[in-house]
Amino acid sequence: MEKNKKNMYDVIIVGGGPAGASAAVYAASRGYKAIILEKNEIGGTIGKVSSVTHYLSVDKDETGKSFKEKLENQLAVYGVEIFKEEVLGFCTENSFKKVMVKSGEVYYAKSIILANGTTQKELNIPGEKELVGKGICFNPSKEGRNYVGKDIFVIGGADGAIKEAIYLAQFAKSLSIIHFEEKLGTIPEFKNKLEKLDNIKLYLQSRLTKIDGKDYIQKLEITDVKTKSVKIIEAEGAAIFRYIGATPNTEGYQSLELEGGFIKVDTKMKTNIEGVFAAGDICSKDIRQVATAVYDGTVAGINVSNYLKTI
Amino acid sequence: MEKNKKNMYDVIIVGGGPAGASAAVYAASRGYKAIILEKNEIGGTIGKVSSVTHYLSVDKDETGKSFKEKLENQLAVYGVEIFKEEVLGFCTENSFKKVMVKSGEVYYAKSIILANGTTQKELNIPGEKELVGKGICFNPSKEGRNYVGKDIFVIGGADGAIKEAIYLAQFAKSLSIIHFEEKLGTIPEFKNKLEKLDNIKLYLQSRLTKIDGKDYIQKLEITDVKTKSVKIIEAEGAAIFRYIGATPNTEGYQSLELEGGFIKVDTKMKTNIEGVFAAGDICSKDIRQVATAVYDGTVAGINVSNYLKTI
Repeated sequence: MEKNKKNMYDVIIVGGGPAGASAAVYAASRGYKAIILEKNEIGGTIGKVSSVTHYLSVDKDETGKSFKEKLENQLAVYGVEIFKEEVLGFCTENSFKKVMVKSGEVYYAKSIILANGTTQKELNIPGEKELVGKGICFNPSKEGRNYVGKDIFVIGGADGAIKEAIYLAQFAKSLSIIHFEEKLGTIPEFKNKLEKLDNIKLYLQSRLTKIDGKDYIQKLEITDVKTKSVKIIEAEGAAIFRYIGATPNTEGYQSLELEGGFIKVDTKMKTNIEGVFAAGDICSKDIRQVATAVYDGTVAGINVSNYLKTI
Repeated sequence: MEKNKKNMYDVIIVGGGPAGASAAVYAASRGYKAIILEKNEIGGTIGKVSSVTHYLSVDKDETGKSFKEKLENQLAVYGVEIFKEEVLGFCTENSFKKVMVKSGEVYYAKSIILANGTTQKELNIPGEKELVGKGICFNPSKEGRNYVGKDIFVIGGADGAIKEAIYLAQFAKSLSIIHFEEKLGTIPEFKNKLEKLDNIKLYLQSRLTKIDGKDYIQKLEITDVKTKSVKIIEAEGAAIFRYIGATPNTEGYQSLELEGGFIKVDTKMKTNIEGVFAAGDICSKDIRQVATAVYDGTVAGINVSNYLKTI
């Protein structure tokens, strides 16, 4: 294998969310040629949220968009190249890592950091797939304003769901939260903000079980999880945002040791394969916050640099 | 002990650097009354550096000062009160923690997070104490511009030292780095920037062993660590910035389990005393970066909130 082949780098970072971006800054600052392969946009999941609130040093009005722009600017300072590629998997070829992507291109590197996070779960109910882009939404700050005066439904009751519900309420005629548990599972900060709004409807112990409509949403079916009784709701032209958890994007990484689908790493963010590190939400971990993703990326970036020094 | 006494809080955070500030944001977002006791200023050590470069999302021209202001603004959003107090120690009184401070005031809380970091080491050489404020400096961005056209000396060879040397070189007639090892121990990013400057002098395998002067610095004595030969340098009106490591501010915490003077914590940032957590540079840890301090504070803030729920 030629060492000087095109597309040969010190480290390929898969995913440009907070973990991947931080890893890139650290590897580059240590003199290594780091690139990011990202199938969507820099910022990852956090680039699509309506506000970034708790990560230390964010501005008062920080949005996913403004945060994403900060990462882009910082990556540019460090000369990190970003390629729009969907990674399918990797393998070891001699002492190099080969990364396969959907476009057919091939990338080589001495090391890899896997930081391509998670994908929001779908409900898997009738009408859902058909209405993507016709009411089924993904990006509150981009799509919210298309539903001014309409009914907006947020599915889920954890922090991510409630934060977006609070944001979306400003556009909605009524903002409904559908959550399968007895109580919302959110922090007091968001609970307090929610209580101050006057257009919120709560459907607790409930699941959205069917969506009707063709070019737009017309009716929703909500099922009580205990009694199994069904309610039909007229919701012409409504929007639905789903926050019912996420699954790790580890399909292509079957050679790695996983834990519940997530990548198992040690305290240096090393996986079970030499030269392969992982960082952020794709890893098995307790606390999932921007700050913990950035920590992972920092630790991975420093340790990949230490590794590159030794080979 | 009265439960409603003045100065009674859910959590007292000692120190307002990145770790303490992040802990405060998280505890407050979870509905707990958190205060910060800080003897100097919010931002801690990082508030005094010339630039903040690697922490994810910083601006291109981020300074210690601009970063500190971001933390102050974020703490204000979360209603975190900050008291200018120097903490002497704490004890447990019934089920409460009592925090003693130099002013004589007493603070009570259900829990404590110790995040009061480290103090830069001194050289302990003749002339050093006497010339503090007369050439011996602490804050490059505040004090650097007082030495335009003068000789500036930076003691130390790690990242923190070299970053400040690069910054201070713009003011200096000559910028000298005195380091006891054979090579600088800094990352390629800073090494490359240093090499582009034309007023840098390197004194490697050397120690600053004496400072002469009364109202200002006049001469320096530099000793070769191998040959022990001594060099006298004329340096009238020079400035000296010291970055020779830091000691943890744990004098008041003798009841805690320490490791080399640093606080030993578990993965939840708990110390060996119930209700007492620690975060940031005061902890025993491998990687000392803003990102790891913020992580510590985030984890401590979340876990202190979980603890407060149970008591």
